[in-house]
Amino acid sequence: MGVEEILKGELSRRQLFRGAVCSAGITALATGGLSLFTRAEAKDGHTEKWPWPYVKLDPDKTAEIAYEEWYRVFCGAGVINSIFSQLREKIGEPYKSFPVDAFKFLEGGMSAWGTICGSNAGANVVTNCIIGPSLKGASEDGMLMGSEIMQWYCDANMPTYTPKDPKFKGEMPKTVANSPLCHVSVGKWMKAADKSLGSPDRKDRCARVTASVAYHTVKLLNEWKDGKYKTKGVLPAKSFNIPAQSNCTECHGSGVPTPPAAKKV
Amino acid sequence: MGVEEILKGELSRRQLFRGAVCSAGITALATGGLSLFTRAEAKDGHTEKWPWPYVKLDPDKTAEIAYEEWYRVFCGAGVINSIFSQLREKIGEPYKSFPVDAFKFLEGGMSAWGTICGSNAGANVVTNCIIGPSLKGASEDGMLMGSEIMQWYCDANMPTYTPKDPKFKGEMPKTVANSPLCHVSVGKWMKAADKSLGSPDRKDRCARVTASVAYHTVKLLNEWKDGKYKTKGVLPAKSFNIPAQSNCTECHGSGVPTPPAAKKV
Repeated sequence: MGVEEILKGELSRRQLFRGAVCSAGITALATGGLSLFTRAEAKDGHTEKWPWPYVKLDPDKTAEIAYEEWYRVFCGAGVINSIFSQLREKIGEPYKSFPVDAFKFLEGGMSAWGTICGSNAGANVVTNCIIGPSLKGASEDGMLMGSEIMQWYCDANMPTYTPKDPKFKGEMPKTVANSPLCHVSVGKWMKAADKSLGSPDRKDRCARVTASVAYHTVKLLNEWKDGKYKTKGVLPAKSFNIPAQSNCTECHGSGVPTPPAAKKV
Repeated sequence: MGVEEILKGELSRRQLFRGAVCSAGITALATGGLSLFTRAEAKDGHTEKWPWPYVKLDPDKTAEIAYEEWYRVFCGAGVINSIFSQLREKIGEPYKSFPVDAFKFLEGGMSAWGTICGSNAGANVVTNCIIGPSLKGASEDGMLMGSEIMQWYCDANMPTYTPKDPKFKGEMPKTVANSPLCHVSVGKWMKAADKSLGSPDRKDRCARVTASVAYHTVKLLNEWKDGKYKTKGVLPAKSFNIPAQSNCTECHGSGVPTPPAAKKV
């Protein structure tokens, strides 16, 4: 029995089982000596229809929720939950099925490695879940809105949002990260404030950054809902010929390497 | 009416509405001048019960799926889908409800910014969704397994996995990234191979890295399922006093700054 025939049999069984006509474009991967895998399941999950329903949210309320959530699940899950928790209440599915708390690992730039700031990662999860991924023929606005938020994060004098009743009552220094990375962002702030990672000042700074990113994300999503969103987001790899931030000299100094040319294969 | 009383009323209405006894630990955030938000919904999503059911998967088959998926949704969603698509078939929920394709944005280190390699981000999504987040009183193994995978990625001569029938038939150079970041990882490879981002060589390299990470992730998850997983993962912020990678001099040169001391607040 050839792969084609096995596939036909598999398809019939599935249609019977699931009571659904599988979409065109089902492909299969037959691996030598291994059992067959069809991509039908992978491609038509019931939460994989975009855009997800969205109603405009209050940026201030969202920021307050994000601020409080930082003290429970930190930056990434804080941003996601500040938005999805409200949409769970106002809309229901697919937000109720999304395992927000699993994203606590975004803390400290992913498991405390200092890579992408969890607030940025969380914002990208939100925009790409709601607007949808840039699959063939689909809008790129989800990814570009995430990119726009990262550029805004790089340029902003953070934190931009001050909570109504902050847990830390002292003076809060502000810094410009010029990078979407946790290590660079929090490092510059710690240097300017001369405060340790474990200080209440630093914790509240990151809670406020989380609130700031949540506020900005909802502001853009509300524009999108109104049909007024014109993205400022770009895909930096297109201009740099390598996936990159724009602060090259910050790591490379004056010796910024030139990637092998785009036209060269 | 005080917050406590408002909460009691809100709780009764919810119980009536949802036919469910809300769990203990419901908290509320009353924001000045804004309407009340309860965290009940945020805390008891039906997919937020851990660990998720898991059956052992074939690492080779998983790697082959990941390799193929790269050519559809790139690295992050490729790793997630290589594992979740099989579990959708073998188990069903909660994997069917997870919007895997939304994670296409992890490509190029998140929207082509070169931050965390999407393969690493995808692996962290998988381990934290299956094993669960390190919420109070819960296991840290999901986050630590993600961290262990990142360290393995840093040290590995990548790509470690060669597909059965690779699309690119030429010689495939291997490089050690010494970093979990896309920009550093792909940059070192591009330099060693003298190939551009758009070359078929580079594309197949990233597809093979995706396969390599998927293979390693399933290997660790299978150990965990067998009750034999002893994590090698750490949270780097604990030793560096700042969220960080361990390749400090690669960006800082000989002038690695010292974070404000941990004991200082």
